[in-house]
Amino acid sequence: MRIRKNLMNPKNNPEGMIEVLRKAPKVALFSHVSPDGDCIGSMLALGLALEKMGKEVSFYNLNSVPSYLAFLPGSSRISQELPSPQPETLLFVDCTDLGRVNLSRPEISEGSTVLNLDHHISNLFFGDFNWVDAQASAVGEVALTLISELGVELDVDMATNLYTAIVTDSGCFQYSNTTAQTHRLTADLLDLGVDFSSIHHHIFNQKPFAQIKLLQCALEGLEIHADGQLAIMMLSAEDFEHSGADQEMSEGLVNYARSIAGVEVAVLLKEVGPQEIKGGLRSNLWLNVNEIAALFGGGGHHRAAGCTLRIPMAEAKQRIITAIEEALTIGWNH
Amino acid sequence: MRIRKNLMNPKNNPEGMIEVLRKAPKVALFSHVSPDGDCIGSMLALGLALEKMGKEVSFYNLNSVPSYLAFLPGSSRISQELPSPQPETLLFVDCTDLGRVNLSRPEISEGSTVLNLDHHISNLFFGDFNWVDAQASAVGEVALTLISELGVELDVDMATNLYTAIVTDSGCFQYSNTTAQTHRLTADLLDLGVDFSSIHHHIFNQKPFAQIKLLQCALEGLEIHADGQLAIMMLSAEDFEHSGADQEMSEGLVNYARSIAGVEVAVLLKEVGPQEIKGGLRSNLWLNVNEIAALFGGGGHHRAAGCTLRIPMAEAKQRIITAIEEALTIGWNH
Repeated sequence: MRIRKNLMNPKNNPEGMIEVLRKAPKVALFSHVSPDGDCIGSMLALGLALEKMGKEVSFYNLNSVPSYLAFLPGSSRISQELPSPQPETLLFVDCTDLGRVNLSRPEISEGSTVLNLDHHISNLFFGDFNWVDAQASAVGEVALTLISELGVELDVDMATNLYTAIVTDSGCFQYSNTTAQTHRLTADLLDLGVDFSSIHHHIFNQKPFAQIKLLQCALEGLEIHADGQLAIMMLSAEDFEHSGADQEMSEGLVNYARSIAGVEVAVLLKEVGPQEIKGGLRSNLWLNVNEIAALFGGGGHHRAAGCTLRIPMAEAKQRIITAIEEALTIGWNH
Repeated sequence: MRIRKNLMNPKNNPEGMIEVLRKAPKVALFSHVSPDGDCIGSMLALGLALEKMGKEVSFYNLNSVPSYLAFLPGSSRISQELPSPQPETLLFVDCTDLGRVNLSRPEISEGSTVLNLDHHISNLFFGDFNWVDAQASAVGEVALTLISELGVELDVDMATNLYTAIVTDSGCFQYSNTTAQTHRLTADLLDLGVDFSSIHHHIFNQKPFAQIKLLQCALEGLEIHADGQLAIMMLSAEDFEHSGADQEMSEGLVNYARSIAGVEVAVLLKEVGPQEIKGGLRSNLWLNVNEIAALFGGGGHHRAAGCTLRIPMAEAKQRIITAIEEALTIGWNH
C-alpha cells in the first residue's frame, strides 16, 4: 500500500496528516449531509482503525444514517449532535468544503487541527492538513491507504465499511473513475472475508415500492425517435402523486431509456411544478448533451446534463426532441 | 500469475496442457452453443495469444456470434464451419462436455489431442488434458493464467476479450463466485488500458425495445403480499404479443421484484401456453425457494428455482401466493 505519488495540488500533505493522527489522543470524525455509502463507510472504517490505536473517537453527521446503511459496523455510534467538548483533532471525510457538513469555520474551536480527506476534484483544501486524491474512485480508497499507513491491521468490520464505500462510489466498478488500484484494494478487502453478496443486497436491493411504480409510469410513456437513436420518457406531477414517489426517486430512471439497443441519447422530463419541466439528458457514445442542455439554459457534462423549461410538458417534449434530432443530424460531438 | 494449487480433481493437468500447447504448430479452438461473453472472450484471447507464439489458429462456434459481442477483437474470425482438415490439437473452452459444442467423440479425428479448459464444477473431464478450476468466476480467469504461463505478453486486444469474459460470468463482480483473485486479475487487465466503460455499454446497454416494453407490462401488474415480503409479477401471452418480446426476454425481470425494500421472495409467472404457467422464484436472504418449486413439481437452488403449473393464470397465482405465505410463516430456510 502506498500513497499515490501524483497528488497534483501542492497543498496536499498526507504525511503531515498521518503524523497528526499518530499523536492525537482524541479524534472527532465528520461526514457530509445527505450521507451515502462512501462517506459513512470511510468515516466508520477510519474511526474503528483509530480506536484500535487506542484513541478516543466520535462520529458526526447532521442527518441520520439511511436505513439501507444501518448494517455497517459502527453505524449506530454516529451522532447527530456535535461533539462537546470538541477534541483538538477534527477529521473531515468526503467533504469538498465545511459547508458539506453544515459547519462554518467559526463553529470550530480555536486551536483545532482540521484534517481534510477527500477525492473530489472540486475540494477547497480547507484543512490544516489536506489529502485529496482526485484519482480515487471513492474516498474509501484513500481511507484504506491512510489506515494502512497508520500501521493498523485491517479487520473484517473495517473492510466491510471500506468495500461499501468503494462499491458505492465506483458504481460497482462500472463508473469511469474505477482504476486498477480500485480492484487491487478491493481484492485486499475480500481477502479479509467481506460478505460482499450481503452488502450488495443491502445497498442495491432496497428500492422503495413507490420508486418501482414510478419506473412503471416512466416506461409506460417511453417514446423512441430519430430512427431509434433517441429515447424519451415523461413523468407528470400526477405520476409522482399516484406512485407516492418523491422527486429523488426519479434519480437514475433515465438509464432505462439509455440501455435500449441503438439509443445514443436518453431524456427524462419531469413536471416539478406548474409549467416547470426538469430535463435530464444522457448520451452513450458521442453526442455532447451539455450543448443541448445549454440551448435551454442548463448544462453539465458531455454525457450527462440537465435543464429546466418553464413551459407545459407537451411543448417541452417537442422542443427537446427537435433540438436533439437536429444535433444528431449535425453530429455534435465536440 | 500462478496456477491455482487446489485444483481438486486429480485428472487436472495444467502443466501437461501447457506443454502440448507450447509444441503444437496448429490449434483449433471451440466454444459452446448459445455463446456468451465468457466463452467467446476467453476463446479469442487464447487464440490471439497462441497466434502471437507463431501458431496457426482457427475458431469455431456452432452459432453466430451475438451482435452485442461483435466488438470483441477477433470475433469476425469465428467460423460456424468445423476446421478441415482438423489440426492435431483441439482446445475446448468453457465446455462441460463435448455435447456443449454439439460434437461427439467420433467426430474428432483419431490421434487428436483434446484439451479441456473450464470452470464448471459439473465438467466431465473429457479431455486428454484437463484444466478445470471451479473456483474461477469465469473461464476467462483460467485463460488469463494459461496465457501468462505460456509466456505470452498480454496486449489490449486479449485484455479486452478477457475483461469481457470475467465481467460477464461474475455479473460485474456481484455474483458470489467473485474472489480476490477475480479483482487482482481484472486490475492487471485495466493496467493494459482496457476501455471498460465501452465494454459495459456493449454488454449491458443493448436491451431490445421489446424487452423494455415487457418490463413495463410486468411492473404494471406487480403485487405485494405477505406484509411486503412477497412481490409477484405476471406476464400473459398477450403481454408477449403486444410488446413483441419473446420468452427469452423475460430473463432477469424477476430481479426488479426482488430489488424492492423488504421483499424476501420474488415471483414471475409467465403464460407460455394455454393453461401452462411457468414460475420463476427468487429469494434474497433466507427462504428456500427450491422447496416451494418442488411443491409444484419443479426445483432448482435455495435462492433461485422454477416450476410449471398447468392451470389458468389466476389459479396459479393464488396457489403460489398461498404456498409462499405459508412457507414465510413456517420459516423454510434449511
